[in-house]
Amino acid sequence: MKDKAKKLQKLKPRLPRGLVDHGPAELAATRAMVERIRRVYERYGFEPVETPAMEYTDALGKFLPDQDRPNEGVFSFQDDDEQWVSLRYDLTAPLARYVAERYGTESLVLPYRSYRHGWVFRNEKPGPGRFRQFMQFDADTVGSASPAADAEICMMAADTMEALGIPRGNYIVKLNSRKVLDGVLESIGLGGQENAGARLTVLRAIDKLDKFPAAEVKKLLGTGRWDGGEEGKGDFTKGAGLSPQQIDLVVQFAGGHNESWEFVTTKSSPPTNDEIMNSVHEFARRAQLNVVEQPSNSLGNLFFSNRAILENWRSQLAGSPTAMQGIAELQEIVNIAQESGYGSQRIQIASEVVRGLEYYTGPVFEVELTLKDEKGHPARFGSVGGGGRYDGLVSRFRGEPVPATGFSIGVSRLHAALKTLGAIDIKPEFGPVVVAVFDKSQIAQYQKLVTTLRNSPIDPKFPNGPRIHAELFLGNAKNMATQFKYADKRNSPCVVIQGPEEQQDGFVQVKDMIIGAELGRLSEDHDDYRRRQQEAQVVTRVEWLVEHVREVLARHDVSWG
Amino acid sequence: MKDKAKKLQKLKPRLPRGLVDHGPAELAATRAMVERIRRVYERYGFEPVETPAMEYTDALGKFLPDQDRPNEGVFSFQDDDEQWVSLRYDLTAPLARYVAERYGTESLVLPYRSYRHGWVFRNEKPGPGRFRQFMQFDADTVGSASPAADAEICMMAADTMEALGIPRGNYIVKLNSRKVLDGVLESIGLGGQENAGARLTVLRAIDKLDKFPAAEVKKLLGTGRWDGGEEGKGDFTKGAGLSPQQIDLVVQFAGGHNESWEFVTTKSSPPTNDEIMNSVHEFARRAQLNVVEQPSNSLGNLFFSNRAILENWRSQLAGSPTAMQGIAELQEIVNIAQESGYGSQRIQIASEVVRGLEYYTGPVFEVELTLKDEKGHPARFGSVGGGGRYDGLVSRFRGEPVPATGFSIGVSRLHAALKTLGAIDIKPEFGPVVVAVFDKSQIAQYQKLVTTLRNSPIDPKFPNGPRIHAELFLGNAKNMATQFKYADKRNSPCVVIQGPEEQQDGFVQVKDMIIGAELGRLSEDHDDYRRRQQEAQVVTRVEWLVEHVREVLARHDVSWG
Repeated sequence: MKDKAKKLQKLKPRLPRGLVDHGPAELAATRAMVERIRRVYERYGFEPVETPAMEYTDALGKFLPDQDRPNEGVFSFQDDDEQWVSLRYDLTAPLARYVAERYGTESLVLPYRSYRHGWVFRNEKPGPGRFRQFMQFDADTVGSASPAADAEICMMAADTMEALGIPRGNYIVKLNSRKVLDGVLESIGLGGQENAGARLTVLRAIDKLDKFPAAEVKKLLGTGRWDGGEEGKGDFTKGAGLSPQQIDLVVQFAGGHNESWEFVTTKSSPPTNDEIMNSVHEFARRAQLNVVEQPSNSLGNLFFSNRAILENWRSQLAGSPTAMQGIAELQEIVNIAQESGYGSQRIQIASEVVRGLEYYTGPVFEVELTLKDEKGHPARFGSVGGGGRYDGLVSRFRGEPVPATGFSIGVSRLHAALKTLGAIDIKPEFGPVVVAVFDKSQIAQYQKLVTTLRNSPIDPKFPNGPRIHAELFLGNAKNMATQFKYADKRNSPCVVIQGPEEQQDGFVQVKDMIIGAELGRLSEDHDDYRRRQQEAQVVTRVEWLVEHVREVLARHDVSWG
Repeated sequence: MKDKAKKLQKLKPRLPRGLVDHGPAELAATRAMVERIRRVYERYGFEPVETPAMEYTDALGKFLPDQDRPNEGVFSFQDDDEQWVSLRYDLTAPLARYVAERYGTESLVLPYRSYRHGWVFRNEKPGPGRFRQFMQFDADTVGSASPAADAEICMMAADTMEALGIPRGNYIVKLNSRKVLDGVLESIGLGGQENAGARLTVLRAIDKLDKFPAAEVKKLLGTGRWDGGEEGKGDFTKGAGLSPQQIDLVVQFAGGHNESWEFVTTKSSPPTNDEIMNSVHEFARRAQLNVVEQPSNSLGNLFFSNRAILENWRSQLAGSPTAMQGIAELQEIVNIAQESGYGSQRIQIASEVVRGLEYYTGPVFEVELTLKDEKGHPARFGSVGGGGRYDGLVSRFRGEPVPATGFSIGVSRLHAALKTLGAIDIKPEFGPVVVAVFDKSQIAQYQKLVTTLRNSPIDPKFPNGPRIHAELFLGNAKNMATQFKYADKRNSPCVVIQGPEEQQDGFVQVKDMIIGAELGRLSEDHDDYRRRQQEAQVVTRVEWLVEHVREVLARHDVSWG
């Protein structure tokens, strides 16, 4: 009874849903990714700036897709002075606050190109690959209305993917415009300020085209959709209330490409080239497009001429001045990028790109990976980054127009995609050299060996270069076997041992853990076995410890990042 | 009236109190600091791990100094399932949860050395240098009860300070033990479980000795203290309720050194060597210590033999087994460090070190900078890092003892200290090469020049090395003067200009902004002026643009971090 009470008192170590811990391999990968992105952004003239994790709730604004949840998608609390404070849900809204605070002062040179990375928080229902804390890496240009600023962002997104080791042809920067989308909605009778809410609902439904089959998106455009797939199952999302005719027009504009994609990817076996070509021509026929380049053996290489798409849109949307302005901007972006060598293989007009956030006002971008998985299937990860022009976000504070455009990489999601595809390869690093404990009363002497190693450069030719990683065994040193097992688990290249006689005579042993592990498997050639056994365990004078450890490190090409 | 209403509607861009934005210079400094700390920690065999910014409130526990405030020092909110979640207030409590969750599984090799850095959040009253979000960099060893683990942490703290560019003698790792402090409190009648709360109040009052004069700390030990300094002013903090005699004993043990320090540092002019020596001897007399090394001209070099202090404590606290155990552990830490060459000039026993967090159970550490400011005064920043042994923090989850020790660097505070002292020097970096806009219709051509520069390595000998930073002027290009002014503010090394005739003939201008700015001041020697004027503005063929820009970069030794 007493035992049970005690057990109940014990705290359970666990994390709230949607939150995760990050281990050494992932952190090393993230660090490498962040460093590469940073270098590209700085090459483009962007400078770093960082805002805190929390802001006044009203300063962040309510631009998240899921406003229907009680906490409105963000984590909030009341400050001492009763004002509401929220954790940032992206890095764009805080930047708008930052810029507005300094606007017109010497500390802000316009146009202002800046970048930042950090954790953002969404109080959403967590799911597979959907976390409540994730890392974004953003770049923004504030104070330029020029499509050249949008073109720059698109080119930078492409360069970033390549700097991250994703070859050209395995990613695509997709480009659309909210103005074009608004034009489409005007054409089905959803124009005007009174329909702003309805337009947003429609846009968010379209945004789901890369997650749901078109039939499900049509439910969101119509009467609504049950999360569980059928009536009464899961939560119900209210639809946009469009008529079947309106729905068809919207899906035809935004979803055609998606449907042809679905046709190919829902097959259980990899599609043949013929099947891909048929799907491409079917899509082209419906969208009245010319297939200008032959797809190779991957859908990732499938694309249509930007010029052809814009031509097509001009004829379809001639009645909407908003859409025509959007098309002209897209044309300019495409021209600038093309002139700099970023053609439609890298930056592509795509009618299905919408972006879920409310604040976009012009061009919107999305980066999609078009890699293949181990089975040769085209792998779909949704977007790994996106952004767009948000001319109204700073204006909320200023009461005057402040043009701005930006781009955000989902670092966590991109890392997951690269890992799944084996495109990011962080080798398991070597652990430190372990100095064993033979006699607890001599621990200060062993620690001195550790310190000597730690203070020694790996390569004596570079005295200020990286030094040897080393540690004392700090566990319960019952016997040597425990310590060898520990060193093995740590992936240590060698263990240093000093027994009592050795200590008295000024000697020390260096045991090569890697050869040691191989010895059992290498017993066929006796000479080789003896040579390797000699290498595996060396007794040397304490003065020569560092040299002998260096020999082991060189033998196995050990370096520490 | 309408205008006023509009103004009122406009959002005010501002941050909640106690939160700050971070600009390029600070971010560059922080990045460099974090990288240096990381290298030291990895050399010591510590591996990275990162936990999320929030945890279940009960998993974090209530160990903060300021529990009397309504939100108990942390930012908290209720999750959908009614459970309370809090932002982490340090990096130690989340590590304890992390370890407990994996304890006894293959994914955790014990002893487990790990490090992590990130933002922590305190819902405290903000003040000068006191923020509600700040960065910590922690290292912890879990699963070792050996004083060798504590010694390692102290040596690592010393190495870290030196890796950050703080010379030996300008920092000190101070060392004490909660067991010794508990022994002192036992000796004044505050022993036993029933006095645990009172002991904590006393410890937290002692912890304030580096912030408040001894007289103010005495108020905290007695009836209490008003924040404003006199009765009725500011908030009132309830005292520990000790008698004047008890207070004297506590302050004599913990505060003697502090009082002598105050004597010297509260003087308006720098103290003379004689004054310092007098203060040292006065302190030594009261504490019955021998001054074993002569102070040089700075209090930073003032120290007493660790052996002498521990001897003194042994005689004073012989009646307390707890204290004697603490003293024995401290002796072992000091011995191990000494044998590895970390003597009392770097690691020093210090009676005033307490640490404010509740969870410490044994040795406690604190790193103090002992640099001098521009006027030659010893500059005091309080501690820039600290930690200690916390054997109970993981046990809360496990119900069995799990020894652990760790150390935390206040990155934000350390950076502020280094900046004030000029010890960290991040040069203002060069901005990118700016390509000017002469004719808006030609923007794609100008962008192409930018792209050519961005794709070119700074040094042609290293084709894969760092590339040229460049950008297109994206502002409202009224005239050239605007663009030169922008490039000047950006600290750009040069501006590239292409007028219409130049464009037609395939030429381009490169204007050296640095020589350009100097030209006015260098007019005395006419030949020199002409040479420099020729360098300042060069007209060249477009094909040679990159070479000419490289010449400017080489001339001014431009590199981009």
